[in-house]
Amino acid sequence: MRLVRFGEAGAEVPGVLDGDGVLRDASSLVADWGGASLAPERLAALAGRVTDLPAVAGWDAEHAETGGGLRLGPPVARPGKVVCIGVNYADHAAESGMQTPPEPVVFMKDPWTVIGHRDTVLVPRGSTKTDYEVELAVVIGATARYLDSPDDALACVAGYATSHDVSERFLQLEGTGTWDKGKSCETFNPLGPWLLTADEVPDPQDLELRLSVNGEERQHGSTAQMVFGVAALVHYLSQVMVLHPGDVINSGTPAGVALGFPDPKPYLRSGDVVECSISGLGTQRTVMGQA
Amino acid sequence: MRLVRFGEAGAEVPGVLDGDGVLRDASSLVADWGGASLAPERLAALAGRVTDLPAVAGWDAEHAETGGGLRLGPPVARPGKVVCIGVNYADHAAESGMQTPPEPVVFMKDPWTVIGHRDTVLVPRGSTKTDYEVELAVVIGATARYLDSPDDALACVAGYATSHDVSERFLQLEGTGTWDKGKSCETFNPLGPWLLTADEVPDPQDLELRLSVNGEERQHGSTAQMVFGVAALVHYLSQVMVLHPGDVINSGTPAGVALGFPDPKPYLRSGDVVECSISGLGTQRTVMGQA
Repeated sequence: MRLVRFGEAGAEVPGVLDGDGVLRDASSLVADWGGASLAPERLAALAGRVTDLPAVAGWDAEHAETGGGLRLGPPVARPGKVVCIGVNYADHAAESGMQTPPEPVVFMKDPWTVIGHRDTVLVPRGSTKTDYEVELAVVIGATARYLDSPDDALACVAGYATSHDVSERFLQLEGTGTWDKGKSCETFNPLGPWLLTADEVPDPQDLELRLSVNGEERQHGSTAQMVFGVAALVHYLSQVMVLHPGDVINSGTPAGVALGFPDPKPYLRSGDVVECSISGLGTQRTVMGQA
Repeated sequence: MRLVRFGEAGAEVPGVLDGDGVLRDASSLVADWGGASLAPERLAALAGRVTDLPAVAGWDAEHAETGGGLRLGPPVARPGKVVCIGVNYADHAAESGMQTPPEPVVFMKDPWTVIGHRDTVLVPRGSTKTDYEVELAVVIGATARYLDSPDDALACVAGYATSHDVSERFLQLEGTGTWDKGKSCETFNPLGPWLLTADEVPDPQDLELRLSVNGEERQHGSTAQMVFGVAALVHYLSQVMVLHPGDVINSGTPAGVALGFPDPKPYLRSGDVVECSISGLGTQRTVMGQA
């Protein structure tokens, strides 16, 4: 199932895209997509009822990926937290001048940064080092706390989404920079267009990620290259924090970010068009703006 | 005004402690304390109506500080984010072997860690370095985005609360530790007992902080010692992220944490009793448990 939230920012309505790309209004069944509504068993119970839900007027099923004529917000309402994993692809570690870490590197992003897949991302005021990072987002559906084994981890996943972990490298890495600071600027986490439920992702380590800027491909990798896969990450995180339904994990980015280029590095500017996609999870298209 | 949330975890009701310590049920006026309900102008409008609100049965006004016979949850419902400021007291920087930073050091804590002022804090499984940190929590009441000046900052503050930024030093500092990881363990942020509205805090840089473990004083400082005061922090953060109503800033801790002691450092164990307080903001009492 592809879960979406459609409508104006702050007033989104939960929906489902059926197998034909028709947008169905799910608000008779759930208040919103987030928290308890993402429990895998609830999603499974819903799956058989999708075509009973009313189709949403004004939706163009031929163009579901580009929003079908309606704004799609992020497919999860107000994540409780956004956990990010640093240097989780060996090729990205190398381009960043870092070692492949012996255990996951954990940092966080302000959950308020999560926006829709075609919303404007703002270059922060004064920034000259705004960078892009396509990532597989793992959305939690069941509480994960001190899981016994990575074998228990995927049962806690509601589904997956395309995520753009926008990053400001000066704030992240220079001066008294910290990763959180360089990752938490306004609008820095487009998510979606949809959440694909985990039952339709047979292997989260076999997804292709792509990102282009102004039509030029910059990132092209596979989740097969992750240092720590999704099950390992969820298991690891569950030992040091509690993952709650609706929480989001940005699982790291493959090589090709602007930081990894020789000078002058091709950082993002207002007007740039960033497109990113992950197999089955849909495409984002962002026109950069200026804060 | 002292804002509280009383009742069982997850089902708290918004209340106000009046000048006599009587608990008044505010649920006829606000759904909960959080987000828009914390707007300074809304709080000001409410102030004159407090004694019209019904007194809550079963509350012992003589013992408001210890919960008056009812559980108090954190005074803010589900903060959107918890931003923390590192090494923001010169004496704590020295004991941690760090320099006083030239600008605020920013990290984050999982907002799910926020619990009530007498709830149990759990030592994480396998932890031998669980540490304490009393901090002034600044609760945002109005959106702060690219503020022009620190002079505009305090108008964005709803109020203040006693906060305990519990920290696991191995996860924070050793191996591939990151601050977020060592700060985000389950139950690691007791908050309260109450939020004191900003109008009753004439100078947030003149508050005394104390923390004791098993009756022995460990921390005793003043917010006058902050490297970056509240107005400077809110202004600074507003340049790199958007602060939304209900967000919490843990503004740093004075000297005296276990990390700063010679070996064997007095880290917390199950059964330890931690008490911490800030002038006018009330006292927390935590009996440590084991995850």
